[in-house]
Amino acid sequence: MVEPPPGCAAVIGCGVIGAGWAARLRLRGVPVRAFDPAPGAADAVAEVHANAAAAWAELGLEPTAVGQLTWCSSIGEAVDGADLVQESVPERLDLKHATLAAIDAAAPPGALIASSTSGFKPSVLASALGEPGRLVVAHPFNPVYLLPLVEIVGGEATTPATIDRALALYRALGMHPLHVRVEIDAFIADRLLEAMWREALWLVRDGVATTGEIDDAIRYGFGLRWAQMGLFETYRIAGGLGGMRQFIAQFGEALAWPWTKLTDVPELDDELIDRIASQSDAQSGAHGIRDLERIRDRNLAAILRALEANDWGAGRTLAGLRELSDG
Amino acid sequence: MVEPPPGCAAVIGCGVIGAGWAARLRLRGVPVRAFDPAPGAADAVAEVHANAAAAWAELGLEPTAVGQLTWCSSIGEAVDGADLVQESVPERLDLKHATLAAIDAAAPPGALIASSTSGFKPSVLASALGEPGRLVVAHPFNPVYLLPLVEIVGGEATTPATIDRALALYRALGMHPLHVRVEIDAFIADRLLEAMWREALWLVRDGVATTGEIDDAIRYGFGLRWAQMGLFETYRIAGGLGGMRQFIAQFGEALAWPWTKLTDVPELDDELIDRIASQSDAQSGAHGIRDLERIRDRNLAAILRALEANDWGAGRTLAGLRELSDG
Repeated sequence: MVEPPPGCAAVIGCGVIGAGWAARLRLRGVPVRAFDPAPGAADAVAEVHANAAAAWAELGLEPTAVGQLTWCSSIGEAVDGADLVQESVPERLDLKHATLAAIDAAAPPGALIASSTSGFKPSVLASALGEPGRLVVAHPFNPVYLLPLVEIVGGEATTPATIDRALALYRALGMHPLHVRVEIDAFIADRLLEAMWREALWLVRDGVATTGEIDDAIRYGFGLRWAQMGLFETYRIAGGLGGMRQFIAQFGEALAWPWTKLTDVPELDDELIDRIASQSDAQSGAHGIRDLERIRDRNLAAILRALEANDWGAGRTLAGLRELSDG
Repeated sequence: MVEPPPGCAAVIGCGVIGAGWAARLRLRGVPVRAFDPAPGAADAVAEVHANAAAAWAELGLEPTAVGQLTWCSSIGEAVDGADLVQESVPERLDLKHATLAAIDAAAPPGALIASSTSGFKPSVLASALGEPGRLVVAHPFNPVYLLPLVEIVGGEATTPATIDRALALYRALGMHPLHVRVEIDAFIADRLLEAMWREALWLVRDGVATTGEIDDAIRYGFGLRWAQMGLFETYRIAGGLGGMRQFIAQFGEALAWPWTKLTDVPELDDELIDRIASQSDAQSGAHGIRDLERIRDRNLAAILRALEANDWGAGRTLAGLRELSDG
């Protein structure tokens, strides 16, 4: 039984993530009411939507009707009549609290309120709401209109019905909702990303590798593995016929070796920021950001179609989205 | 100017990695002389070769001639006449030293000696050699016959000519050699992997997520990004039009938050190993290891072809391999 997508959604905060939500929702036929007081926000949303529409065309998805976009001049106006309110303002707790309080005060009683936060626990966010039972974290990944993962996290006050509703709703948007059952800061994916980012900063700071060399170490090697299997399934295979136990027997001891400097956080001082920014310019500066987005999206679309042909992983999510869109 | 592949190669140690080297070399037309005293090693090499040949067929690569495989009963016999000796024995320093000393004593004067070690510095390995100038680390990634990355690391005694020769030789095998300019334990990719593995162990140990949930958090999200762009290029885009500086401004502060438990190494006690192994069985046990290898390989081949069609990243390595094979 496939749930329908929300009848109307409000997108509060239209940076990279909010604009990505607006694009996915509209391409699934959902009318979107958007609010973002930043100058240029409407232009950025239009550009992201154009990229998203091109990517969906690459996927062979032809939406029968694109949801209408309505720009609103206040949170109260935006949430009017919304079944889903998706909050994607910058990661400052005071701003999150003020925004969620305004949403809670104005949203219809039946609306699901979802925060895109990548770090704050829902119980910490919930203190701003009079009705915290309807709040979830729904943490997506950039580009939101192509990557299927969304982490769904409930707080102490979140009702089981809210979790169930969120899971169904994001599935109806063609996503892969992952219910994070234990409430921790930064959830699952960003814990993993944070660990690697920190190690990468050390490598750059110590002059071991440039940003471009680190990226090549990823995309010519384990990055290709992880588009289709994760860390554990890949290592299960690496253990040979002995599987996971044999792999741990080989690898476990090495874990205690003093390979990494992860016991410290490198200081992001001006020198390190300059180094990263200039290496990144040398690596990627030949393309503008919008060009890079289009290159990334074309690659992601091609990978998703390849996995769909093999009936595997994120390719199944794409196949599901195709069925939803046909239905 | 494309260098030819080696005229003859010796593969010493034929586990998952050594068997992968043998397959890549033979599919590039190189005769391989193999040595591994483990019972069943020859069968395993034959099975891996069959998987590799199937994967190359998926890639549309039809080797005009597959290099002959000769099983040898000693290191001395295996290295006879070899231009390249690839050592892939288990990661124990005493065993590496003994093996490399035997290789060095018997290999032709002009042979390049390469270790597949994923952790030991070449200067540490070199103490076993009378002629350490010809030793490099050439660290590949599983499956060696599909993933293009190979980290090339020289030690204090390694000559610049040896590095140049190694880079040309692995390019001639259709790989993407990454010269790791600073000699550190575990090089670049495994530093990054180690950081994430450690964090993943904490998540499993603390009951936050199962191995299957962690894998889904990777392959439905950032794993798809990393098949084509790395950490830094992806984050450059995430910064929006402000690029890398804006991203760091947003993200930098969060790095110091107490999100991770990376300051400690989790103890891999029996309870944790049991938990990982049983979760991994629940996640992947429906397929045998050889089945999983074939699924992985079919997915990797499809992803590589998709990237080749887009003339990007590892797809360019595949296009290069196609040209080499036609030449």
